[in-house]
Amino acid sequence: MGLSGRHFLASTDCSAIEWHQLLDLAAAFKAGQARVHLDGKVLGLIFSKASTRTRVSFAVAMARLGGQTLDLNPAVTQVGRGELVEDTARVLSRYVDALAIRTFAQAELETYARFSSVPVINALTDLEHPCQAIADFLTLREAFGSLEGLTLSYVGDGNNVAHSLILAGVLLGVNVRLACPTGYGPDPAVLDRAQAIAGDGATVEVLADPEAACLGAQALYTDVWASMGQEQEAGQRLRDFSGYCLDQHLLSLADPEAIVLHCLPAHRGEEISAGVMEGKASRIFDQAENRLHGQQALLASLLGSGV
Amino acid sequence: MGLSGRHFLASTDCSAIEWHQLLDLAAAFKAGQARVHLDGKVLGLIFSKASTRTRVSFAVAMARLGGQTLDLNPAVTQVGRGELVEDTARVLSRYVDALAIRTFAQAELETYARFSSVPVINALTDLEHPCQAIADFLTLREAFGSLEGLTLSYVGDGNNVAHSLILAGVLLGVNVRLACPTGYGPDPAVLDRAQAIAGDGATVEVLADPEAACLGAQALYTDVWASMGQEQEAGQRLRDFSGYCLDQHLLSLADPEAIVLHCLPAHRGEEISAGVMEGKASRIFDQAENRLHGQQALLASLLGSGV
Amino acid sequence: MGLSGRHFLASTDCSAIEWHQLLDLAAAFKAGQARVHLDGKVLGLIFSKASTRTRVSFAVAMARLGGQTLDLNPAVTQVGRGELVEDTARVLSRYVDALAIRTFAQAELETYARFSSVPVINALTDLEHPCQAIADFLTLREAFGSLEGLTLSYVGDGNNVAHSLILAGVLLGVNVRLACPTGYGPDPAVLDRAQAIAGDGATVEVLADPEAACLGAQALYTDVWASMGQEQEAGQRLRDFSGYCLDQHLLSLADPEAIVLHCLPAHRGEEISAGVMEGKASRIFDQAENRLHGQQALLASLLGSGV
Repeated sequence: MGLSGRHFLASTDCSAIEWHQLLDLAAAFKAGQARVHLDGKVLGLIFSKASTRTRVSFAVAMARLGGQTLDLNPAVTQVGRGELVEDTARVLSRYVDALAIRTFAQAELETYARFSSVPVINALTDLEHPCQAIADFLTLREAFGSLEGLTLSYVGDGNNVAHSLILAGVLLGVNVRLACPTGYGPDPAVLDRAQAIAGDGATVEVLADPEAACLGAQALYTDVWASMGQEQEAGQRLRDFSGYCLDQHLLSLADPEAIVLHCLPAHRGEEISAGVMEGKASRIFDQAENRLHGQQALLASLLGSGV
Repeated sequence: MGLSGRHFLASTDCSAIEWHQLLDLAAAFKAGQARVHLDGKVLGLIFSKASTRTRVSFAVAMARLGGQTLDLNPAVTQVGRGELVEDTARVLSRYVDALAIRTFAQAELETYARFSSVPVINALTDLEHPCQAIADFLTLREAFGSLEGLTLSYVGDGNNVAHSLILAGVLLGVNVRLACPTGYGPDPAVLDRAQAIAGDGATVEVLADPEAACLGAQALYTDVWASMGQEQEAGQRLRDFSGYCLDQHLLSLADPEAIVLHCLPAHRGEEISAGVMEGKASRIFDQAENRLHGQQALLASLLGSGV
Repeated sequence: MGLSGRHFLASTDCSAIEWHQLLDLAAAFKAGQARVHLDGKVLGLIFSKASTRTRVSFAVAMARLGGQTLDLNPAVTQVGRGELVEDTARVLSRYVDALAIRTFAQAELETYARFSSVPVINALTDLEHPCQAIADFLTLREAFGSLEGLTLSYVGDGNNVAHSLILAGVLLGVNVRLACPTGYGPDPAVLDRAQAIAGDGATVEVLADPEAACLGAQALYTDVWASMGQEQEAGQRLRDFSGYCLDQHLLSLADPEAIVLHCLPAHRGEEISAGVMEGKASRIFDQAENRLHGQQALLASLLGSGV
């Protein structure tokens, strides 16, 4: 696949063709039709923020491939004792075969990558969540057979999850529409990058009106209004996001076959209604499961021979 | 064995025949005569309370079977960030192959089981400790060849460990006698359930007098007086349990071949004397080891094919 | 190798011949020329102090050998709830195949070893760091082909790392010179032991003058001035160690082919200058990597059959 030995720091670190190949391989793993052995290989996890799905899905993905995962929580390593990131990166990459890093700053991730002799994977930063996007587009493809020309509407905070949807979306030929309250739109630099990539293919639009955004879409997507580290803004955000709840009304405006996605954890009655969360359009738990298959494909591509 | 894909939330989740089969399989693993492969399979551990023996014996059991264990400590998952147990259970069970859960409330364990698509194992609740009971009766069977008609006397707090001894005991044909101070007897509902199961087989008796309870018994069993979460009651309990120390005198009343059991950790000079703990009747460290073989049998039965 | 089933609590637990064999095996693992399978075997890690390199290198070493590692952090086990070390050691050694222990007191390590039925490995105590010494002398041997007659100069605190260099050094035929400020010299008992072992082979000298110590040496070695647990002495130590920084000047006095070693983490501008740390003589990151190969050799020797 050409990913062997590379970093995966951003959605744009893979070409359009490589994104399609990643989804093909993920689907093959899910169907039990791919076999890659990473026996004796170890993925190190450096997670500065709590994580359920990312951590567990990476660990199980490695186990299914015959490898292991090692928690390199900053609290138990010496990074917390003032060791330079560049020293930690050089040392750890002498031991493990890849590093998946969850950190607040994309810049810190890039420092790790610069000094690491093994692939570094973005497991969530302030800027992007590209591993989530693999699962998201795998779920969408499962529902519609192919992605070409579909529209995914994201209602809520223009955060890291939204950024990866935008960038991976244009690479995969999916139109992305966002409805964000004023002041909560995606990073303009991400939009510029997406326009540059898109050429005359898929489009990206940022709207204020959730109804307009959802109209005729094949997927409605939302995320919590206050992400990790924003807990103190929760009250203000609750007011600012009023009207942006993904509910039955918005769903009724979408394509009759539309699916509902959410990267979890969910706060019912805030960004999503309980009815939509548990309704027949919801693919939320399939999407969560697809983190496993997506990351199995990513790890196999980065670390396997002959994939 | 018929356990494939089932939950193990309570001792009574297995029939008498299944209990005997579990012990047979555990003995076979201990003797190196059973081979079950769980390669690539992952057991998730959700432990809300500290644990040495349970956590380590589960992890080593999975390793011996070729699988892996994943710590899903609530502190590092999002359960602590307010995610509903039903969402956590649905997501985690998409990743792991089984969940072993240690929690204060049996009701929470049952909620996990209701929403989990994979087997859930009781790794200790307020109500039961059935995995401990597998090791306990395996140790007793090792000493006497068969269990039929033996008497096990439990001296101390009528807690979760006692409950599992009562329920598994009657299923296995072992008479269980308990000596508990007033106010520290087992849950009456557990006793009712045991009577209903016992039919005209094994008996369960609750006595106040430790001497009467130990008379002629083949096994004397005790546990700490203040379990996890009861530390603030320790002083009161020390007074209330006075006279319930498993010492040389009580041991002298039992069957001359009687063995001594304790699920550890032990407080010498409180619930057990140092002499009895280290004496020739003690099978306490064999019993600890048997956690490993018992849980290997349980995991193989729940997750293996063709066991 | 004769290490099967033995403890590795101190550098002197191996004979000179066994030390050479350990380095041979480590080099063979590094070259991909040794194959030992520890499938289904588990190494327990009991670490009372933070650790990056030791913990990670042990975990990856086990993974490469097909085994697993289990974190037995005192915080999550019952040792913290007042269980006696002798009970914990007896129970844990019924489950795991070896224990690597990092603790403040060598005496506690020895208690674990006395009650453990499986090999116990010193993963750093107040007295010694013998696993570090395996990596150190492997790195030195890689640079010069053989160790016989080389001189290693250690500049800084006469701590546990220095002790293991002294003891393993004399066993391996390496002359060890130390330059330590007054009051920070190595334990006299360690020096006595080294003299007794050395016979008329390698020499050990303790000097006050770093320049004299470094003159013509083939390896210059340093460590942080304030180790874990000495943070409150850091200010005093900064003054006391003034003049003991391993810098370009000291390096210029050594053998022109001399290498620079440091067991990390490093504090640039204190015990080592940034220029020397990143300079062409530095083998510091190779040395860190060699922890992995050294411990793979150690584990294979202790746990493997037919090594």
